[in-house]
Amino acid sequence: MTRYARLAAILGQRIEQGLYPAGERLPSVRTLSQEHGVSISTVQQAYRLLEESHLVEARPKSGYFVRSRRPQAALPAVTAPVQRPVDISQWEQVLELIRNKPRADLIQLGRGMPDIHEPTLKPLLKALGNIGRHGDLRSLLYDSIQGVTELREQIARLLLDSGCRIGAGQLVVTTGCHEALSAGLRAVCRPGDIVAVDSPCFHGTMQTLKGLGMKALEIPTDPLTGVSLEALEMALEQWPIKAILLTPNCNNPLGYIMPDAHKKRLLMLAQRHDAAIIEDDVYGDIAYRYPRPRTIKAFDDDGRVLLCSSFSKTLAPGLRVGWIAPGRYLERVLHMKYIGTGSTATQPQLAIAEFIRHGHYLQHLRRMRARYQQNRDRMTDWIMKYFPAGTRVSQPRGGFMLWIELHEEFDTLRLNRYLEQQGVQIAVGSIFSASGKYRNCLRINYAAKLTAEIERAVQRVGDTVQQLMAADTLARSD
Amino acid sequence: MTRYARLAAILGQRIEQGLYPAGERLPSVRTLSQEHGVSISTVQQAYRLLEESHLVEARPKSGYFVRSRRPQAALPAVTAPVQRPVDISQWEQVLELIRNKPRADLIQLGRGMPDIHEPTLKPLLKALGNIGRHGDLRSLLYDSIQGVTELREQIARLLLDSGCRIGAGQLVVTTGCHEALSAGLRAVCRPGDIVAVDSPCFHGTMQTLKGLGMKALEIPTDPLTGVSLEALEMALEQWPIKAILLTPNCNNPLGYIMPDAHKKRLLMLAQRHDAAIIEDDVYGDIAYRYPRPRTIKAFDDDGRVLLCSSFSKTLAPGLRVGWIAPGRYLERVLHMKYIGTGSTATQPQLAIAEFIRHGHYLQHLRRMRARYQQNRDRMTDWIMKYFPAGTRVSQPRGGFMLWIELHEEFDTLRLNRYLEQQGVQIAVGSIFSASGKYRNCLRINYAAKLTAEIERAVQRVGDTVQQLMAADTLARSD
Repeated sequence: MTRYARLAAILGQRIEQGLYPAGERLPSVRTLSQEHGVSISTVQQAYRLLEESHLVEARPKSGYFVRSRRPQAALPAVTAPVQRPVDISQWEQVLELIRNKPRADLIQLGRGMPDIHEPTLKPLLKALGNIGRHGDLRSLLYDSIQGVTELREQIARLLLDSGCRIGAGQLVVTTGCHEALSAGLRAVCRPGDIVAVDSPCFHGTMQTLKGLGMKALEIPTDPLTGVSLEALEMALEQWPIKAILLTPNCNNPLGYIMPDAHKKRLLMLAQRHDAAIIEDDVYGDIAYRYPRPRTIKAFDDDGRVLLCSSFSKTLAPGLRVGWIAPGRYLERVLHMKYIGTGSTATQPQLAIAEFIRHGHYLQHLRRMRARYQQNRDRMTDWIMKYFPAGTRVSQPRGGFMLWIELHEEFDTLRLNRYLEQQGVQIAVGSIFSASGKYRNCLRINYAAKLTAEIERAVQRVGDTVQQLMAADTLARSD
Repeated sequence: MTRYARLAAILGQRIEQGLYPAGERLPSVRTLSQEHGVSISTVQQAYRLLEESHLVEARPKSGYFVRSRRPQAALPAVTAPVQRPVDISQWEQVLELIRNKPRADLIQLGRGMPDIHEPTLKPLLKALGNIGRHGDLRSLLYDSIQGVTELREQIARLLLDSGCRIGAGQLVVTTGCHEALSAGLRAVCRPGDIVAVDSPCFHGTMQTLKGLGMKALEIPTDPLTGVSLEALEMALEQWPIKAILLTPNCNNPLGYIMPDAHKKRLLMLAQRHDAAIIEDDVYGDIAYRYPRPRTIKAFDDDGRVLLCSSFSKTLAPGLRVGWIAPGRYLERVLHMKYIGTGSTATQPQLAIAEFIRHGHYLQHLRRMRARYQQNRDRMTDWIMKYFPAGTRVSQPRGGFMLWIELHEEFDTLRLNRYLEQQGVQIAVGSIFSASGKYRNCLRINYAAKLTAEIERAVQRVGDTVQQLMAADTLARSD
């Protein structure tokens, strides 16, 4: 990490902790320079980063100020306590969500699609289109089963930002993060094994456990700091847990970033109980703060963390390029990758490597971070405006999803059926649980340009919620 | 099937059965027209097809003649009888084969790479390069989990040639045939289950069984007609076999095409013992005869055949586009596909659909069929010239691999170590068995343009074999 990035991280943390409250003037450039023993320009660069992260605003001739926070909706509740390892179902509901391809007559607020229309993505399209020019047909052939070397070298460089020093030889390119998670799970667990997951948990992970015949043990989760370490510890003592699978950075669906201290404690727990950690970092690069948060893998000193990620959320999902840093499980993961898909398509790997090498990736990230953060605020405003009072909304620190919690008796499966007729699709909460939880929740995507059409769609969702609630109240009073 | 294709098939069969011996004049166009009640031009088209398949040659003003056969090497022996279900190992040897990426200093005769340098592939490169032109960004997004509709429609059309009427809705696009086989196996079997396989068997299939914790039961195989149905029947009576996995058309590594009558009997056996059939047809489209051979799936009337294939051998492996027609197991296969990779990259699917729609696929196949058949003859000549007397060689009816059987005490693993130092790589026979068979065999690829450099490489392999054999004889006589 560079000096200015480190300084920005320190200041960002103080702001988040409330040490510098909203609206307050921050220390002058000169003061900070003396206090931290760094140059004036280092402090200026640090402040520029914080401006980009929307934590700080510069006022001409007055200095830097903490940006005032906007009114927030109430947070979703901490989730219910651990129960027991369970088998997963809900495949039909997931299939309903993912079966549709993009189409004009349906506003898909349900899926994990990033925005792909920003001009910063153009060099990638160009690189992808360069196939076979200059007579180089390498992209038509199998490459190394570990993935194209140039790409692994670029990923290794990017990983430094999350505190990981991992050589290209320790990485395996996969067909999206899906394959990384699936190969990782198959490398460390067998059918019947118990896997602890954060709850709510990404439905793709849940379905992978189901498909592999593994059991999920859902660990309650705080909407700001992530999985409860106390509950996890109890679970580890009570059950033979083989792996802990979670998304500590920019969690899907809750959006929190687990504090570093928690990440370290979690790793220690895993070491004490000899469990592997499968860390899904697919949204980690689009945290709203810069430098991006560290991964659990950054603290891993005995190779038990399998870090999984992809370019599906940062660039485009149709590329199907992900990766895994499997630590001590490299050989097993390679085998699982070989039997799953043989290898990953060569051309997208070459194109992405070129895109990163020329600096386009970081430029694109900067733009998307700012965009998604603005969209988060706008979408939160719409939810507060159109949804019934008492609606609880997550406060994501990255990514592009809101988790919305309605009255505990509300049924979003029923809501979804009404919405379908109106050309809107949401993700129902129940697919994020293995034990029938979150039926009163939904997840909404705010990646796309937030047009008036999307606002109307959100309003339609809110209206339908209100109507269904009113009908329920009427029914109860009968 | 068209009339002329049907007539060509009848004539081709008679030639293969020896009814019309080599060098003999075939019935005149007029005679055949009367005999079969078809038009003159239909007979002419049929003869043109047979010419393309190198079964027949036209002599000006004399008519059509059966092409004379070339001297053949002895065939590999029918493989050893059924033993018992076994666990698979040999992963290290497979990894050694697949770990290398294409490089200048290594002649890779071992891998299943098609030739990608023919001009008939150019329209595909163009289609692949068209990404994002005209502002269509569809290729960057997830498409339907079943795969791009246009591609599934084209595949459904192609499948008619192998006798299959399968709607686009019954197909699932996969990331190569690897994912098709893996998802198919996971859909019908569980860890610990027994799967019957043809022996020798593609090493990818073997490793998939290993990775999924399933057991392989190797069924002996005839080098011209495929798996022994008698041995298979005995095995089905003796063991609780869940699935039969085999490559009946242009088998890898033996190159045979199982006769239709065998395919039907095999299906009946599977029905009687309620086993699923996983049919790998990845080389079926490059059979040297036209029309191409039928699949077992063509006779499937109760949806128990899962037909797996890809464009990796017909077009290019780096595209990673395959498919599966899973019959009654569609829903399970969809789930397995979802948890394995989420979906398959969109852009190659769109490009391949366009390539097929414009007729380029069939044109490319025609060219490759002729090329590979010529190469087979040339490579067989080289083997007979450079390898020791007594070497047995397969007689492939399609694909681009020769299976070579050496003296029963010869060890090709040892051979491979010597060859590595000389910059040549072969596929050792032992990776095609789960029970330690085929240590005296090797597989050689003849897809590439057979240059003087490749001839020298084959000569080096032959020389090394001779030297090792001479050394062994000396050691024995000591």
